[in-house]
Amino acid sequence: MNQPANEINRTLETSEPMLYRLLSALGRRAVFPPDIPFQAGEARGTSYNGTIGILTDGHGGAVPLPSMAAVLNLSAEDRTRAFLYSPVSGMPELRQLWRAWQRRSQPESIPSSLPLVTAGLSHSLSIAADLFSDEGRAVAVATPFWGNYPQTFAMRTGAVMHTAPGYRNGRYNTHAIAEALEDLPPGEPAIALLNFPSNPGGYSPSVAERAELRRTLLAVADQRPLIVILDEAYAGYVYEEEIPFTSMYWELAGVHEQLIAIKVDGATKEFSFFGGRVGFITFPIDPDSPAAKVLESKVMSLMRSTVGSPVATSQVILLQALRSGRAAEEIERARRLAHERYRVLKSLLAELDPELLRPLPFNSGFFALIEVPEGLPFTAEQLRHHLIEHHDTGIVSVPPRYLRVAICSVASEAIPEMMARVVRGAKELAVRKAA
Amino acid sequence: MNQPANEINRTLETSEPMLYRLLSALGRRAVFPPDIPFQAGEARGTSYNGTIGILTDGHGGAVPLPSMAAVLNLSAEDRTRAFLYSPVSGMPELRQLWRAWQRRSQPESIPSSLPLVTAGLSHSLSIAADLFSDEGRAVAVATPFWGNYPQTFAMRTGAVMHTAPGYRNGRYNTHAIAEALEDLPPGEPAIALLNFPSNPGGYSPSVAERAELRRTLLAVADQRPLIVILDEAYAGYVYEEEIPFTSMYWELAGVHEQLIAIKVDGATKEFSFFGGRVGFITFPIDPDSPAAKVLESKVMSLMRSTVGSPVATSQVILLQALRSGRAAEEIERARRLAHERYRVLKSLLAELDPELLRPLPFNSGFFALIEVPEGLPFTAEQLRHHLIEHHDTGIVSVPPRYLRVAICSVASEAIPEMMARVVRGAKELAVRKAA
Repeated sequence: MNQPANEINRTLETSEPMLYRLLSALGRRAVFPPDIPFQAGEARGTSYNGTIGILTDGHGGAVPLPSMAAVLNLSAEDRTRAFLYSPVSGMPELRQLWRAWQRRSQPESIPSSLPLVTAGLSHSLSIAADLFSDEGRAVAVATPFWGNYPQTFAMRTGAVMHTAPGYRNGRYNTHAIAEALEDLPPGEPAIALLNFPSNPGGYSPSVAERAELRRTLLAVADQRPLIVILDEAYAGYVYEEEIPFTSMYWELAGVHEQLIAIKVDGATKEFSFFGGRVGFITFPIDPDSPAAKVLESKVMSLMRSTVGSPVATSQVILLQALRSGRAAEEIERARRLAHERYRVLKSLLAELDPELLRPLPFNSGFFALIEVPEGLPFTAEQLRHHLIEHHDTGIVSVPPRYLRVAICSVASEAIPEMMARVVRGAKELAVRKAA
Repeated sequence: MNQPANEINRTLETSEPMLYRLLSALGRRAVFPPDIPFQAGEARGTSYNGTIGILTDGHGGAVPLPSMAAVLNLSAEDRTRAFLYSPVSGMPELRQLWRAWQRRSQPESIPSSLPLVTAGLSHSLSIAADLFSDEGRAVAVATPFWGNYPQTFAMRTGAVMHTAPGYRNGRYNTHAIAEALEDLPPGEPAIALLNFPSNPGGYSPSVAERAELRRTLLAVADQRPLIVILDEAYAGYVYEEEIPFTSMYWELAGVHEQLIAIKVDGATKEFSFFGGRVGFITFPIDPDSPAAKVLESKVMSLMRSTVGSPVATSQVILLQALRSGRAAEEIERARRLAHERYRVLKSLLAELDPELLRPLPFNSGFFALIEVPEGLPFTAEQLRHHLIEHHDTGIVSVPPRYLRVAICSVASEAIPEMMARVVRGAKELAVRKAA
């Protein structure tokens, strides 16, 4: 191990031994090197600053190409920030404003670091995987789950996915993570992935289910060190009043010595900024703690060695919403749009023949999940192909036997016809195969 | 190995056996999975498309927050593209236009793939490292080199850096890569990193040096499979008429069975769009070849598992320049700005006392490199600290004994005073330490 990594690792070992213990080999090696960005940091504010590797007008202003500068309707200062490099950890103003956004109406006592800016939620997950996932590390997740998890964890780091059904008898299974880890020897560390509102599930647990889920996670943490990664891509898209709207992070951070909650969120869905690639990663430690500085150094090293720095342009665009004071209200408009489609689809799901297509619980997010009951003579994948070929209709199939239907990208008026075609297609396959 | 990876690996093994042989373990595992983005691709064009996980108005239009939408001065169509996801491989129009930009005045006979869009040049390098670099793989580079190379290759993948002096007797060393690999057993594959114009060097080889460098690389490829990664971040910033302006990729692609040239370029410096994070990676194979499809699948898998998709917003901004027909002319304005500062610094470097500060060859890029001669009683790092503390001046120190001075971010008028302070600081340390 290199000397600077040794030093920050010792700091982490002293202040947050559990976090230290859970680091992967790469996580241990990672340290932001004292090279050019570091030296440029030290030279900040000098009158004659020849450290900075960006083309400027000589007084800190960007020199964008006119055809590109014309796109951005911004103050001169913000335009310069949009065209020049972002700090590797993200823009300080954005990090502060995002922390305030995350913590709105949360008690001060629950720890959360100053979020680090990433290149989107996938990148936050990939950084968490780099930090904590290694060859053979157990990653627990309820089925069905987002297809990118095994790519990010298993394919890249050699972790082993441990799964258990996310639904049992048509209801949300609060014990899935515990069940997934049942066969893992006690004491062996694990990573758990939680995703609310879920994709492909379109589900967020109720108050009672959250309490039960929390109890099962604490019981797992009694047995083994557990990193709980909260993938909150769809935060805010909740359509039923009794379903909690706030992040479950606040119920898990700092409550158990062996449970490390990591919050992954960002602008992609929450601020309807899919193309911007602004995500965040937040740790359950105070912003000024020595451990926060260590994790910041490690994340900056991983950031720099994968993508250099986060997108400045998108950070500046996101800043406009956070500075405006109207973010919550503007987001509510987007949520209502989805809510209206939810209402239409929800009532159509209630009318489905459960012998043919069985809807799973649906109360949030961008998707509804429908089960093709066992015993029918066609698979979800066959139905998907049939719908493209014969009904001009696209839906997603999720192994082993689920269909995912999006509400986020389909107009309310089109949902009844879309669902009519799905039902017609399913009936055709049921009859044809049975024949 | 999973089934889909096996299939595409077999295709690559048949059509480009050398490329296949050089893949890392991760490179072999990587395959774009037939899950949601794949299924959304298949459903493209259906009238009822419930596959897409983005919030739209129901007719394909983005639903941005008004405070953020107001920033972008774009047609409705481009604004939607800026706010929604980019394809994982990048926007087709941008990929085509960038390929045309890369190939301007190059013969049709030299192969180059349709470039894949990445999250910046660091990300292109990281993808190349993921594809081809493994525990113990030799990575050859001339010293001094950009500090991010060991982070991306050695820290992340466990590769071993092999170095040799990039300068000998104050002149560019065309044999550095060959020297760096001298002790590696013949037959053992290696990666070589070439960076012109260079950072921290500020140097591009002359016509004669390029011919010599090409000969040495071909001689290395006679001995072992060699991946040559051309990091062309500073493409175009060349200030002397006799120095070739075009990429060396065109002299290396497809010329030797055991030499694989990979082109890494992008908008960061070339289009003065530092904050945008748009890079490209290009392989020496024809766009429609089976091998190109295989590498595309692998890069898309690595893209998805690290950052999801490239930044759409920045791609749309870059498109404005490429579509305008004025890109070359607008870039020339930026180059001239740097050229004027180059002229000023170059004449000051000629006046340095070589016993105190010895300038290395300088003809391009954003930086000049100055050597602190051996035997002086101070290091480059000590001089850097001294200049910050006592002369309000920031420069970068590069081990073992180089100073890097930026022209890109310092006004012409300020360069003489900056250099006067560097000289004064060096004299003070020379005297103080000698005393």
